[in-house]
Parts: sequence; C-alpha cells; structure tokens
Amino acid sequence: MKIITKEIILQSRGNCNIIDLTDETQKILNETNLLEGSCGIFSIGSTAAVTTIEYEPGLLRDIPRILDKLIPQFSKYYHNETWGDGNGHAHIRSALIGTSLNVPFRNGMLMLGTWQQIVLIDFDNKKRTRRVAIQVTGK
Amino acid sequence: MKIITKEIILQSRGNCNIIDLTDETQKILNETNLLEGSCGIFSIGSTAAVTTIEYEPGLLRDIPRILDKLIPQFSKYYHNETWGDGNGHAHIRSALIGTSLNVPFRNGMLMLGTWQQIVLIDFDNKKRTRRVAIQVTGK
Amino acid sequence: MKIITKEIILQSRGNCNIIDLTDETQKILNETNLLEGSCGIFSIGSTAAVTTIEYEPGLLRDIPRILDKLIPQFSKYYHNETWGDGNGHAHIRSALIGTSLNVPFRNGMLMLGTWQQIVLIDFDNKKRTRRVAIQVTGK
Repeated sequence: MKIITKEIILQSRGNCNIIDLTDETQKILNETNLLEGSCGIFSIGSTAAVTTIEYEPGLLRDIPRILDKLIPQFSKYYHNETWGDGNGHAHIRSALIGTSLNVPFRNGMLMLGTWQQIVLIDFDNKKRTRRVAIQVTGK
Repeated sequence: MKIITKEIILQSRGNCNIIDLTDETQKILNETNLLEGSCGIFSIGSTAAVTTIEYEPGLLRDIPRILDKLIPQFSKYYHNETWGDGNGHAHIRSALIGTSLNVPFRNGMLMLGTWQQIVLIDFDNKKRTRRVAIQVTGK
Repeated sequence: MKIITKEIILQSRGNCNIIDLTDETQKILNETNLLEGSCGIFSIGSTAAVTTIEYEPGLLRDIPRILDKLIPQFSKYYHNETWGDGNGHAHIRSALIGTSLNVPFRNGMLMLGTWQQIVLIDFDNKKRTRRVAIQVTGK
C-alpha cells in the first residue's frame, strides 16, 4: 500500500464556475503506477465544493440556476453583514454539497460512469486561485 | 493493510427508489476478514447518490417528496432540452447529495448507528441496472 | 501504512447546533505520529451531518436559517406520523448533507484552508450525546 498526495492549483472564474478535474485526477493516478485503490479529492477552502456530474453544457447552466433558486446569491446573510464580502451563499452551498469526494480505481482506471466527471464548483463571487488536494491510496 | 474492490449490480425502479445496501456492504466486509478500516461506497453513474438514512417507510416517502419540492422533476432543464431524456432533475440531485460515502469499521463491524443504513437513491426517471463500487481498505 | 480508529463523544444541544471538530481531529492525528494520509470523519447516527465551514458567528446563524427554509422543521413528515418524535426534518437534512467526510493531511497537518473548519451539525430536535468516528489512515 502506498499513499501519494498532490496539490493542484486552478484559476477559477468563481460565480458557480464548474471545472472538470477528471483528466487531471487520472493523470496523477497514472503517475503513481498504482492499480487498485482510491483517489481522494478535497477542496481546500470553504466556498467551493467537489462532486461528480455529467459535464455537458446543459447541466453547466442548470446547476447554477437551481442553486440560485435554493440558496440565492442576493439575499440577506449574517455572514455578509459581518465580513462585507458578499459570499455568504457560497459558504452555505459548499457546506451542503461538500468538500470531499472519494473515487475508487481498479486496473489503474477511475471507476467512473461513462458520463460521470469529477468537478470542482467554485461558488465564490469573484475569480480566484483554487487549491485542490488529490490523494491516491492503493497498491 | 489490504484493499479489496467489488462491484455490485442492482436492479432499480428509478424515480427516487431508495435501496438499502447495508447488508451487502457488511457481507463484502465479512468476506475480506479485515477487522479495522473503511468501506468506500461509490455510485457509478451521475443520476444516483449514496448516503445514510434510517431505512423506514416514512422517510422512504418523505425524501422523494422533499426532493421533488426542491429540485422538481417536471421543470425546465437545459439538460432535457439538449438530450431529451427528461432526467435533468436526477443529475442535479445526484450532484448535490453526492456519489461517494466512506463508512469506518472496527472489530469487523461497520460503525453505523442503530438506525442508520447505507443507501443508494436512484433519481433517474426509469428503471435501470445500477453499478455500485464497494471498496474495503484496512487490516 | 497504519490505520487508527477513535470514537469521540460530544454533548450537543441539537436544533442545528454546529460543533467545531477541527482541534479534536488534529489532536487525534498528532497522537498517531503519522505524516501523510487521510482523516475520515463519520457521524454515527442519522440525524446529524459532517461537513466543512468557516466557523464564524454569521454562518452559525445563516446555515440553520437556510435549512429551515429548504427543509422546515415544522412541516408534515410521514416519519413523524409513524414515530411521533418530530425529527423528520433532521433525518432528511442529514441524508442530503452527508455523514462522511475525508480530509487529507501532509507533514502531519490537516490540509484545510485557513478559514475552513471540520464540523458536526446536529439537526435533531433535542439535546443529545453524539458519537463521531475519527479514523486516521496513513504513513
């Protein structure tokens, strides 16, 4: 059993920018030469989330729209009154969707569905540099 | 430390069908003879989710009802306009609830609460064959 | 590779009480003397959730308020009709937010953002003793 931890740096536009991390994750997995185990993907920071979606243009529009209905950007948040940064909605969306994901792999391949990609969603209200930890554990 | 990866195949009715995976997960764990570690449960595919619930008839009715209020099946989704498969709501529910879950075990037993079960929820709008990866890591 | 499993006991006020577990998790990690790996945090029980947030007073008020809008405490739930315990909302919130979280560590430190804390949120409608499993895997 081995464990390898990488940190990747992304440029995000914020505002529900959805970034496909699948190729980068598989590339890191390839470099480890491990065959069976799990990739942990972790969003470092509390205004983004990681999850899986079918990465296609329709959903890239639907997901921000639904989230803006459920947890609106322009609403009253005590967080915004305290900090004045206008990203209270981003914190709550991140907490609800989650910041950690674990994807198993076998024969050196991520066990994703054909139309299933690993994504970071950046909910913050401005463009940002984002850090994501990718940790491969396996044999 | 060992790692064992299984893939289970399920017949689901779709439409928020909630399937209890606890016994199957514990059975796979038993077959590994491992005593301490973690079971990763991963939904292969982007229109289902894995989580834990108290598996009882009331909640099996409440969860679909609440989700249909938050993320309605019959609403406008760009995903549906593009693909014509009517399951945009299923993709969004899966992304929000999540497709990975990790349950620790000790003394060979999953560390679940008494009224806590591992479930797959299939949000798709038709019956489907579902694949779930169950990966046991431990000693 | 080593694996160490601890169970911590918390006194919670319930009613969306948000409890910071970061220091306790880092303390358990320190005691293992492991340098690189992952901490699994698991809520034992189906009416609480684990996630990460910026632990600051504004969000501690915003999160309960938003959740009460999305999944109201005082609404009709079949769960409550069956069991009479009035915590149907707590079960659904737990299922949606999730009961497992994995945080990677490197150089013996959790790879959290500066304003990112590990929390348990107890959605139940009364004060409770809570059990959380913290499992450290690494080298």
